[in-house]
Amino acid sequence: MPKFVDHDARRRAIADAVIELAATEGLPAVTLRRVAGQLGGSMGAVQYYFSSRDEMLDFAHGHLAARREQRVRARLEGLGRAPDQRDILYAAVLTGLPLDEDRRAEALADGAYFARGLTEAGAHQRHGLPQLLAMFEDLVRTGISDGLVREGVDPALEARVLWALIATQASALAHDVDSVEEALATVDYEMARIFIDPPTRVEQP
Amino acid sequence: MPKFVDHDARRRAIADAVIELAATEGLPAVTLRRVAGQLGGSMGAVQYYFSSRDEMLDFAHGHLAARREQRVRARLEGLGRAPDQRDILYAAVLTGLPLDEDRRAEALADGAYFARGLTEAGAHQRHGLPQLLAMFEDLVRTGISDGLVREGVDPALEARVLWALIATQASALAHDVDSVEEALATVDYEMARIFIDPPTRVEQP
Repeated sequence: MPKFVDHDARRRAIADAVIELAATEGLPAVTLRRVAGQLGGSMGAVQYYFSSRDEMLDFAHGHLAARREQRVRARLEGLGRAPDQRDILYAAVLTGLPLDEDRRAEALADGAYFARGLTEAGAHQRHGLPQLLAMFEDLVRTGISDGLVREGVDPALEARVLWALIATQASALAHDVDSVEEALATVDYEMARIFIDPPTRVEQP
Repeated sequence: MPKFVDHDARRRAIADAVIELAATEGLPAVTLRRVAGQLGGSMGAVQYYFSSRDEMLDFAHGHLAARREQRVRARLEGLGRAPDQRDILYAAVLTGLPLDEDRRAEALADGAYFARGLTEAGAHQRHGLPQLLAMFEDLVRTGISDGLVREGVDPALEARVLWALIATQASALAHDVDSVEEALATVDYEMARIFIDPPTRVEQP
């Protein structure tokens, strides 16, 4: 029997190792060699999938976003009903906060990617801030059409407030200079300002 | 005639050099030697005022806060009338955004101090986050007593939203990944949610 290899799973495992390493040691520490070492493999095994460090880093960043999307999807499926914009926006905000070990690693890695974006030309585009803002804006806008949103809420500016809340609190929580309970209360406060009938907190601190 | 030296002015000049150096090269680059070089003086001249690097860094951080306070005071005096909580809160938020070269250097230096706070035990206390939150909370609370604030605004949670807005936007602006106009519009949006009769923008982008 030939030995089949799940190449996608291999790539994802490499990306998980990148996130872990970026979270604990920062992005400069993430080399093909270190990642191979982390996985107990050879550098050649990593190079089979990624021809350069940059290619690996970009893939891992996309994988980080995919991990968050998957978490949002799982949360929405767990509701047991069709989700609306409130549910989706709330889940999207919570997936960015380091409320468990996975999200903590993601938040720290994200910070490392952000720092890279600040120093490497064009990399902040790849960081995904414009995409995040567009997603939030779109959710709020659709919420307005569906009559879920309070009067006076501006989709574009609200998206920026949500970005600020996630970015600041994620970094502060990941570095243990903030409390989970206060971060969640701040998110709930903002949700109640956006939605006429705000989502109920499912996540326990 | 004896030569009088304004020791406070000397200390402040050293602190300004620390802020400038921290902003351009990060806090690790800020040594007594580098600061002396920046000022065209000897290391001994800096050591006359600060016996250690830590002492110099802490003083410079306090000086950074003093520069901001002075800017807030000047802005409030420029109003030509007795300022109320709206004016003070608005001025306090705007002083944290990198809207000119001085504030840009402060925002970058502040980021460097924050990064230091994340790695050095106890240093995040010195970073002043609890004090900033307490100041915002107090201003909102007094604004409520004075009938200036909209119903439903929570002083402690609102303070956290304002912190998030300043921290995120200051960092993004200082690194040129955000637009001044959008940052100011977001601040105005938040002010209009806090105050029944929000402050008018004086600052031009």
